Amino acid sequence: MPELAYLNGKFMPIESAMVPIEDRGYQFGDAVYEVIASYEGKLFCVEEHLDRLERSMRELAFPPVSRDEVRDTLFELFKRSGFSRAGIYIQVSRGVAVRNHPFPETSTPQIVMTVREVSEVPQEYRENGISVITMTDFRWGRCDIKTVQLLPNTIAKQRAIEAGVYDTIFVTEAGVVREATSSNLFVVKNGILITHPLTENILAGITRMVVIDLCRELDLPVEERFYSTDEMFDADEAFLSGTTTEVLPIVQIDEKIIGDGKIGPIASRLSAVLQRRGLESG
Amino acid sequence: MPELAYLNGKFMPIESAMVPIEDRGYQFGDAVYEVIASYEGKLFCVEEHLDRLERSMRELAFPPVSRDEVRDTLFELFKRSGFSRAGIYIQVSRGVAVRNHPFPETSTPQIVMTVREVSEVPQEYRENGISVITMTDFRWGRCDIKTVQLLPNTIAKQRAIEAGVYDTIFVTEAGVVREATSSNLFVVKNGILITHPLTENILAGITRMVVIDLCRELDLPVEERFYSTDEMFDADEAFLSGTTTEVLPIVQIDEKIIGDGKIGPIASRLSAVLQRRGLESG
Repeated sequence: MPELAYLNGKFMPIESAMVPIEDRGYQFGDAVYEVIASYEGKLFCVEEHLDRLERSMRELAFPPVSRDEVRDTLFELFKRSGFSRAGIYIQVSRGVAVRNHPFPETSTPQIVMTVREVSEVPQEYRENGISVITMTDFRWGRCDIKTVQLLPNTIAKQRAIEAGVYDTIFVTEAGVVREATSSNLFVVKNGILITHPLTENILAGITRMVVIDLCRELDLPVEERFYSTDEMFDADEAFLSGTTTEVLPIVQIDEKIIGDGKIGPIASRLSAVLQRRGLESG
Repeated sequence: MPELAYLNGKFMPIESAMVPIEDRGYQFGDAVYEVIASYEGKLFCVEEHLDRLERSMRELAFPPVSRDEVRDTLFELFKRSGFSRAGIYIQVSRGVAVRNHPFPETSTPQIVMTVREVSEVPQEYRENGISVITMTDFRWGRCDIKTVQLLPNTIAKQRAIEAGVYDTIFVTEAGVVREATSSNLFVVKNGILITHPLTENILAGITRMVVIDLCRELDLPVEERFYSTDEMFDADEAFLSGTTTEVLPIVQIDEKIIGDGKIGPIASRLSAVLQRRGLESG
């Protein structure tokens, strides 16, 4: 069951997949991406990810690519890998052009994909919850577009690792809570879930959307609104949501224990329901 | 006299230079760069560019690379090209690693270079000055590090092109003037030059520094301080500074004519002195 890459119509070992140095993804970070996971051999939320990929490309005025071709390719890659629990990474750059800031007048988007087994969040974190730190949000102003402008995210994640915790939550200088380095954040207070509204400053997470839908089914109230670090620290529960993160409970933020320091009942319930939903998909 | 690339110890046609898709420069924009220009066969400010490259790498905790090796390579590339007026592009990424946000525990920085003839600013712009527009600065918070987190810069430059002007000036929502998409900005009022101070929000341009040094020699007062869009619109003169931009006078910003709408005496003088300095270099 091999790890594989797809590039220019061919499937190959990941190490063999090479792009020209003047791919704009390499010189300008002029590229968008998606990560799609499977549960027991079934890819989850494929159309939702393709919707977002298309939106990202539209927002950046990329020439269009065939959605059917992208879908067919990723299913073929998935099939060839044979992985039951696969993580498919899809990156589309604007294409190759002589280095120059403006968008090239003509360019052919470069589609690259890889498939690997999902690197699972350690079971210990799922059972006991994670600790996170906060950091001033120093990312660019269009985090709603899923681009490879990810250096600040890597720096923030690295800072978390060095602090001995799992992840970093971006907060503004004014104390507005945004999201984590590669997942959204929910807090719970008095039975109400609160998460940052969809603006240009956070990613419209697929799992965020799935969680909100689940809450509707489960009659759990959700407020999509701005909230402060004070509100976050004072929450009864907090959790991250993301494609491979799923629902991951947080028990400590900076020096502050959240709730009673144990996984909360709502995060716990959503985590279980989401996993089941993944397993039932397809 | 060929355009050339350098990669992994070899010189080759630019189109032949390929990097692995899991180069972190491609998937995270985790890479820094420099552009060095020559005048009549002599490279200008090489050590200053190498200083900045090293600083960028240090700020991002890249494993170190040999400065002597980078210098030797870029001179060799320059020599092989045979170009009198060369633009050498140097990009260093953190290296290749399985996609994962934190910095890999070990990685070997990937050095890529290209050489082409400088794409000169049209003489008409140098003689009559350029028009620019303003746009809210939506770049990340570490523009002092010369990274490939350049998507907002390409979007802003594209917007300028579509507006029929030369470039875009980033200004904050509070009306603080930063810099252009790939050059610094100076304004002149009552014989005093004003430019944004060195903070995390602008690049410490080599040409900016050379211009400030020239002003000292020429007894022209320079203030490195924050200034507002009002001050910018009210300036007697304005100009961009950059490696291939050199000193480029601005005669219109948004709807506002700067000064009398003609190239000002100070920009004109600095432009001439800078060009001479370039020609005398080496």
